[in-house]
Amino acid sequence: MTTTLHWVPTAEFTRVREGIPEPYDRSRAVSALSRINTLYMIKRAGSGHLGSSFSAADIVTHLHLHEMRRPFEADGDVYFSSKGHDAPGLYAALIGLGALDEHLVHRLRRLDGLPGHPDVHTPHMPFNTGSLGMGVSKAKGLVLADRLRGLDRRIYVLTGDGELQEGQNWEALAGAVRHGMHELTVVVDHNKIQSDTWVADVSDLGDLEAKFRAFGWGTLRCDGNDPLELEAAFRKRAESFPEGPAVIIADTVKGAGCDTFAATTSLREGEWMYRFHSGAPSAEDYRAAYAELSATAAEVLSRHGLGQLRTEEAAAETVPAADPLAERLPQVYGEALAELARGDERVVALDADLVLDTGLIPFSEEFPDRFFECGIAEQDMVSMAGGLAAGGKLPFVHSFSCFLHSRPNEQIYNNATENRRVVYTGSLAGLVPAAPGHSHQAVRDVSALGAVPDLLILEPANGAGVRAAVEFCATAAESVYLRLVSGPVGGEVAALPAPPLHVGRGRVVREGGSTVAVGAGPVVLGQLLDAARLLAAEGVELTVVELPWLNRADPEWLAQLASGARTLTVVENHYTRGGQADTVGRALLELGLEQAPRFHGIGLTEVPRCGTPAETLAAHGLAAADLAGALRTGPAAATR
Amino acid sequence: MTTTLHWVPTAEFTRVREGIPEPYDRSRAVSALSRINTLYMIKRAGSGHLGSSFSAADIVTHLHLHEMRRPFEADGDVYFSSKGHDAPGLYAALIGLGALDEHLVHRLRRLDGLPGHPDVHTPHMPFNTGSLGMGVSKAKGLVLADRLRGLDRRIYVLTGDGELQEGQNWEALAGAVRHGMHELTVVVDHNKIQSDTWVADVSDLGDLEAKFRAFGWGTLRCDGNDPLELEAAFRKRAESFPEGPAVIIADTVKGAGCDTFAATTSLREGEWMYRFHSGAPSAEDYRAAYAELSATAAEVLSRHGLGQLRTEEAAAETVPAADPLAERLPQVYGEALAELARGDERVVALDADLVLDTGLIPFSEEFPDRFFECGIAEQDMVSMAGGLAAGGKLPFVHSFSCFLHSRPNEQIYNNATENRRVVYTGSLAGLVPAAPGHSHQAVRDVSALGAVPDLLILEPANGAGVRAAVEFCATAAESVYLRLVSGPVGGEVAALPAPPLHVGRGRVVREGGSTVAVGAGPVVLGQLLDAARLLAAEGVELTVVELPWLNRADPEWLAQLASGARTLTVVENHYTRGGQADTVGRALLELGLEQAPRFHGIGLTEVPRCGTPAETLAAHGLAAADLAGALRTGPAAATR
Repeated sequence: MTTTLHWVPTAEFTRVREGIPEPYDRSRAVSALSRINTLYMIKRAGSGHLGSSFSAADIVTHLHLHEMRRPFEADGDVYFSSKGHDAPGLYAALIGLGALDEHLVHRLRRLDGLPGHPDVHTPHMPFNTGSLGMGVSKAKGLVLADRLRGLDRRIYVLTGDGELQEGQNWEALAGAVRHGMHELTVVVDHNKIQSDTWVADVSDLGDLEAKFRAFGWGTLRCDGNDPLELEAAFRKRAESFPEGPAVIIADTVKGAGCDTFAATTSLREGEWMYRFHSGAPSAEDYRAAYAELSATAAEVLSRHGLGQLRTEEAAAETVPAADPLAERLPQVYGEALAELARGDERVVALDADLVLDTGLIPFSEEFPDRFFECGIAEQDMVSMAGGLAAGGKLPFVHSFSCFLHSRPNEQIYNNATENRRVVYTGSLAGLVPAAPGHSHQAVRDVSALGAVPDLLILEPANGAGVRAAVEFCATAAESVYLRLVSGPVGGEVAALPAPPLHVGRGRVVREGGSTVAVGAGPVVLGQLLDAARLLAAEGVELTVVELPWLNRADPEWLAQLASGARTLTVVENHYTRGGQADTVGRALLELGLEQAPRFHGIGLTEVPRCGTPAETLAAHGLAAADLAGALRTGPAAATR
Repeated sequence: MTTTLHWVPTAEFTRVREGIPEPYDRSRAVSALSRINTLYMIKRAGSGHLGSSFSAADIVTHLHLHEMRRPFEADGDVYFSSKGHDAPGLYAALIGLGALDEHLVHRLRRLDGLPGHPDVHTPHMPFNTGSLGMGVSKAKGLVLADRLRGLDRRIYVLTGDGELQEGQNWEALAGAVRHGMHELTVVVDHNKIQSDTWVADVSDLGDLEAKFRAFGWGTLRCDGNDPLELEAAFRKRAESFPEGPAVIIADTVKGAGCDTFAATTSLREGEWMYRFHSGAPSAEDYRAAYAELSATAAEVLSRHGLGQLRTEEAAAETVPAADPLAERLPQVYGEALAELARGDERVVALDADLVLDTGLIPFSEEFPDRFFECGIAEQDMVSMAGGLAAGGKLPFVHSFSCFLHSRPNEQIYNNATENRRVVYTGSLAGLVPAAPGHSHQAVRDVSALGAVPDLLILEPANGAGVRAAVEFCATAAESVYLRLVSGPVGGEVAALPAPPLHVGRGRVVREGGSTVAVGAGPVVLGQLLDAARLLAAEGVELTVVELPWLNRADPEWLAQLASGARTLTVVENHYTRGGQADTVGRALLELGLEQAPRFHGIGLTEVPRCGTPAETLAAHGLAAADLAGALRTGPAAATR
């Protein structure tokens, strides 16, 4: 279905900006135009953080129109968003101000376009953000570098409020006071809703002003959607706290500027989940929101005699409907976990503000006493799981893989040194979906956790595999890191029966010849099975092997597999370094075979790119056609 | 030189305890006896955290004598130290109370004895601590498990004050309030001195009471070295905050109970560094301290008619003097970094409260404006380094390897995705010195960081290697994780000239035959050179190869090396999984040689044990004799 979409050209931003001498109305108009383009970009991309972009829009406009000195020059004042989720809104504002090329308005979350979270390869993005809680620290480093360079400029950092649950924020505050960082202003976009629901229901921030004051920061508060209040707050910041860092707690509304998305109406009586955190709006919601935003803009424009708002039209690209039979592994997982919990009262679940995306809603509703929402505080969550295990429980710990393997990396190891049995379930694993950008693409997890003692890394390929994996976790002697791809799983891979789960052993999922490809998970196996079809057309019969264990390879099984192989290639949804290819390659060599197959590993060799699944897999040489090509020629002289 | 040492048997603790009906004097006496044994244990072990044990001694005594219900029974109240440094003091108290076997008083920091930091394999240690900042989270998990079990008990956690610089503490506070954790009491051992110097000079905690109150915790304060004040504080805790978690900020003195070690005298005019954080006292300091503590005990005993204190004598084992020619790599490193900084103004250094142990004192004194002490806040430090790099600087980031590779794991990756050039220097890398225990033994770092894009892992073997490595870091295109062993480097390894630093290439350091062993760093190369001597006596000429790159192997170089090898063994000061053996093994297999050498990797297969260097290396099969044995027989059928 095609929806007509509307976007505002840069020239129209300029006309409006130059036509409104009154500063607050100018802000209001620019914010409304930015919101129209944000809405367009997210609807067109099919995903993006709408509520967060809208809540921050007036802050972004105020800073760029009125506060920052030379914002887009090399040594001018710096603004960046630590929460990163509001990237579409920031992009929209910068496109409107001519600081980003206009054509990028059509390229949100696409290859060589604008990533789902800010990235330094986009102009005027000083830092990569998306992993929460690093922004204040980075800003401090920049202030120190500026001082050494004798550079006088101000740094503005936007944080979320949910983001303040991350401990790194509180680590960062003391140093800014110690160094008297008058250059640094933090703005908290205090919209009171994090990913899923109210911050107060996830992990209450308590008295935020008192906290910052206790940490020695100058503290101000204002309505962050009101240009007048923002102006006053920034004026007071300079006057009241000339000697040190300060925070402006900006009370905002998630989805502000547009009743369709605003929290006050979108969380209706009886609803607990905010619906516009990261998905695209429906066609109906799009039309309603566009109508509202246009009316807001028209009202300001007419007050200043600027006539009609001039927009361009574009058709939303038709997004192919998801295969109705496709499985979503986190959802299957959530049901399997609830089923397990019915029969095993040791089972408890911990979540870090991703109850929807980790499939935990059924569990949390059925076992409210055994479900612990920890907020965006992965280190605390993992150590709490250690405490629960010490008390006789079998904790299942949840987040996106990208955060779960790295933020609490030391805490996971510490649990292991205590011989605690814990299951770590990371969803959104691997390269795709690639739309959110590399902060959310977990492609280093096998390496980062692979050497943790008694921790098995297991990646199921489909729903049957997930159910078997959950059962395995309940009785295994080891801890398990369960790596779940979140994209839809359909076709041939979805139809595979569950594999037998003997540690380090795999199974052939497509019988073929002596060209053998080994991999795990729906993305790799799906591409390999497609590659096998391409190769079969050329008379090459590819043997496809599922090895769901990513840090174990059983020597006996491997010897058997190798005996029929002329070439053996490990394909990974992960960096090629530090993952399954290293484990299998070394194990194969240690077998000391007379006649070892030629061996090669294929995986990521650079930081993952942002785009649609198909274009991203192809960009990294991991699409079926690329794999068919690599497997056809076989391993060349190794280059690492 | 032998010093006569004195220790108090458990029976004497019992006699004193039972002979003093007055509770406060009973506490004073038990604390004095515990301090005598703590002093004995640390002097005998040759290292241990004396100041921290003494500051906490009165708290530990009060809790165990007066506060905890059934402290040593299965479901009784639980106490543990999150800071962990005060382990010797805790052990001394538990030995005195008969909860740990008396013979362990002689076994601090020895194999199968009492580890340098608490470990669950020691009775009555509910958690492993030593990595800071996890304790409150673990306690919360235990409270939740207790509630599910219907178990009514109280959990007491001791934290340091420097420890509160870690962000995880602040992550943890909200959840305890949310769950109304009246079972949980945190005691802050607020001695105002962290590893090196005053907390206020490292990263000022500001108004600690205001902070905890702002986070919603019940907050009390008392003199933590006064039994009466402690009693009052715990009474008030129960009365004033029956519905939620509470903290008792206990003002203490580092080295309390003994003027020899107490901060007020040991930080003399002009001194900035506390001298009794982790080393053993000199014979003279030992005698003075023992005299003071005996006098304190005698005074209380005589007041209660208990006669003389009955102690046992033991001779301190003669610790072999360190080789006067031995190099300390962190010290060499610190000088090389200062030298580099003289000619390159981009160079800045960041430290996480280990300025002594990372060799940074010369740098910090010569370049105070380019040295940033970040406190025990590794995540903040690493992201700040990213900000400094964004501002054109070349940051060198420092901590112990164990903390640096894991706590800020995601922050290191985030810097890499921004293409920031940062040098991460981790000291105390590897298995030995093994006395502090596994929280401080970095044997998983190569795995945890190995897949970070454009990050080279480099382990120099001696001072010459360190100087070459620092020069390399200044000009490399990549970021570098510099892995520094901290133990003394002497003998043959110390005499090696600096290797040429071509990424992924090594060099032969001992010409031999077709039995080839590959490794990096002073520990592995030292043991291999010793093994070569043992094997030469049997007519086997071992070729020893230094490959200082732990996550790179150059195929061309490797092919050349393999051409003369019948067997090739990689030996690692690291888990055998995820390290150099995986990289070399896979690269060797990918060469597709007609005649590959038999390959084997040797490294750690279990969590590192605590002990002297010699006994620990032997316990893990990594001593020269073990390696000689393994290399003599050659690779057997692989077992991973």
